[in-house]
Amino acid sequence: MSTGKMPPDGAPRRHEPDADTIVGGILGGDRHMLSRAITLIESQKPEHRQKAHEILDRCLKHKSVSIRIGITGSPGAGKSTFIEALGEVIIRSGLSLAVLAIDPSSRQTKGSILGDKARMEKLSGRKEAFIRPSASSGHLGGLSPKTHETIVLCEAAGYDVILVETVGVGQSEVEVDTMVDFILLLMLPGSGDELQGIKRGIMEIADAIAITKSDGAQEGIAQLSKAEFEAALRMLPAKYPFWQRSVFLTSALGGRGIDEVWGNITTFIEEIRRNGLLAENRREQLRNLLYGILEGMLKKEFFSCPDVTKLREGIERQVVSAELSPFTGANRLMEAFTRRR
Amino acid sequence: MSTGKMPPDGAPRRHEPDADTIVGGILGGDRHMLSRAITLIESQKPEHRQKAHEILDRCLKHKSVSIRIGITGSPGAGKSTFIEALGEVIIRSGLSLAVLAIDPSSRQTKGSILGDKARMEKLSGRKEAFIRPSASSGHLGGLSPKTHETIVLCEAAGYDVILVETVGVGQSEVEVDTMVDFILLLMLPGSGDELQGIKRGIMEIADAIAITKSDGAQEGIAQLSKAEFEAALRMLPAKYPFWQRSVFLTSALGGRGIDEVWGNITTFIEEIRRNGLLAENRREQLRNLLYGILEGMLKKEFFSCPDVTKLREGIERQVVSAELSPFTGANRLMEAFTRRR
Repeated sequence: MSTGKMPPDGAPRRHEPDADTIVGGILGGDRHMLSRAITLIESQKPEHRQKAHEILDRCLKHKSVSIRIGITGSPGAGKSTFIEALGEVIIRSGLSLAVLAIDPSSRQTKGSILGDKARMEKLSGRKEAFIRPSASSGHLGGLSPKTHETIVLCEAAGYDVILVETVGVGQSEVEVDTMVDFILLLMLPGSGDELQGIKRGIMEIADAIAITKSDGAQEGIAQLSKAEFEAALRMLPAKYPFWQRSVFLTSALGGRGIDEVWGNITTFIEEIRRNGLLAENRREQLRNLLYGILEGMLKKEFFSCPDVTKLREGIERQVVSAELSPFTGANRLMEAFTRRR
Repeated sequence: MSTGKMPPDGAPRRHEPDADTIVGGILGGDRHMLSRAITLIESQKPEHRQKAHEILDRCLKHKSVSIRIGITGSPGAGKSTFIEALGEVIIRSGLSLAVLAIDPSSRQTKGSILGDKARMEKLSGRKEAFIRPSASSGHLGGLSPKTHETIVLCEAAGYDVILVETVGVGQSEVEVDTMVDFILLLMLPGSGDELQGIKRGIMEIADAIAITKSDGAQEGIAQLSKAEFEAALRMLPAKYPFWQRSVFLTSALGGRGIDEVWGNITTFIEEIRRNGLLAENRREQLRNLLYGILEGMLKKEFFSCPDVTKLREGIERQVVSAELSPFTGANRLMEAFTRRR
C-alpha cells in the first residue's frame, strides 16, 4: 500500500499520526487508533514511550470508570472459551468490553498454541468487543505497568468492562490485584490436584471461582470440586468483610452458569461502588501505578549503569558461592552506581 | 558502673570493642559479644553499619549450617509458650538454639503486652539458648534484611537451630520464606474463623500446622480444626512435591505433640539435606539477601535525594486525585533524581 522508501529496519514506512490525532481517535471510538496507541506503549523506543506518555496523560483526563475484571487460571483451564461466553453475556446486557488477552505467541505467558485469530473467534467479530494481546514482553508472569497503561487507554475509549486475562503461574496475579476490581479464578473439574500448578496465594486473591467444563461426564466430579473449593474458601482469610466468595459450575458450551457468574460480578461491583471501595481502589491503583513505574525506572537506571553491569555478574556469583558477603557485594554495586552521581 | 562522661545523647559512654574482638567473641560463643554485634546491625548510624558489615563479612566465612525455622501465628496464638516447649525438646536432643523473638515493645509487630523477661522465662535461663528480640524497626511486618543478618551472626556463634518468630499479619511471612528452611504455622483451636486475621498466602507457605492449646475443654474443637485444616491443605498447592504437610494437635502445658512437631521438622530437614534443596536454599537465600539489601539501598538513595523529597508528596497527591498521570509523575521524580547524576 505504501509508496515510501523502506526504512533501515525493513518495515514499510507509513504515515504516523500525531498524538492529537491518536487521542481524538481513541476518544471517538476508533479501534485502529487505540491499537496504535497500545503499540506505542509496548514499544521499547524512547521516542515512542515519550509519545505514549503524552497520549496517556490526555486519555487519563477523559477516562470513564469501567468495571475491571481479572480472569485467571492455569493453561488448559479454558480461559478463552470462558471469556467468549462471558463476553456474549456482557454484550447482551448492553455493555461494551475490551479483552486484554494473553498473547499465545509469547513463551513467557504459556498461552494456547493456537493462533490469536483462532482464540475468541466469535468475540473478535463483535463490534462491541475489542481484543488485544496483553503487553507482556520482558515482564515476569505476563503483566506489567504496560498492562495498566493499556487499561487506561481502553477506559478512555469508553469500554464499559475490561477483562484482563492472566495465567495463574507467575507473579501476574499479585500484580493484577493492583489493577482490577474483581478476580475470577477458573478451575477445571477435578480433585484440586490441578492446583499444584497454580501459584500460591491465588485462591486467596480470587473473589469467585468458576469451575469450567462442568458438563456431560464431568458433572459428578465438578459437583465434588465445587464442595471442595467451597470448603477451602471457608478456611482461607476473607478478602473483604462484606463479600462471601462463591463457587460456580459453568460450561461455556451449554452456557451454563455464565449468567450467574456475571450476576455475581455485578453484585460485587455495585457493593463496592456503594461502600466507596471502588473509588478507593482507583486511588490506590493510581498510587501503585506511580510507584510501580518509578521502581521499574529506578531499577532500569541502576542495572543499565555501565559500572554496575560490569561488576554485577561476578559479584552475584561470589555472593551465591559464599565467597563474598551480600552486604559487601551490595555496597560495591551501590558504590559503582553512586560514583557517577 | 561507668565512670566516663555522659555523651551528648545521654547514654553512659563505655568502651566499645573493635571488630576483631567482637568477631573473636562471637566465634568463641560469647553471648555478650553476639548481642553487641546485633545492636550494631540494628543501629541506624553509618559508622555502626560500617562496623557491622565488617563483622558480618568475617562471620559469614565461619558460619555453620544451622536449621532455620520460621514460627508464625496471630497474636494470641501462644507463640512464646509454644517456643518455650519446643526449645526444651530441642535442647534435650542435644542442640543449642537461638530465638529471634518478636519484640513486645514494638507496636509494629503487635507482640504480647508482657515484658520480654516474662516471655520465654524458662528458656532464657538455659545456657543452650540465646533469645533476642527481632530487629524490626522501620520495616513492615517485623522482618528485614537485618533479621537475615542476625541469623548469619547466630550461625557464626554456632547455634544449631535458629527459630524466627513472626506474626501472621504483615509481609513478614513472605520475607521469612526467603530466610528459613521450614515454616510452622501456629493456630488456635477453632473453626478457622481466626484465619480472618492472618495474612493471605500464609497457609500456603506453611510446611506444617500446629494447633496450640489443644487440651481440656478445647479437645473437641481442636480435633475438628485439625480435620478442617487438613482438608484445606489438600486444596492448596503443594509447596514441595516430596512433602506432605501435617497438622498437629499440641499443648505446651502438657507437652502434647511437641516431640511430634520436632520430629516432623527434622524429617523435613534430613530430606532437603539429602535431595540438595538445603544447599540450594542457602544459595538462593544469599542471592535474595544481596538483592534485598541492594533494593533497600537504592530506594533509600532515591527517596532521600533532596530533589526527590521536595517533589514527592505533591506529585503523589496529584496522581492519586487523577490531576496528574502516574507516567508523568514518575518521569518528573526520575528526572529530579538523575539531574544530580
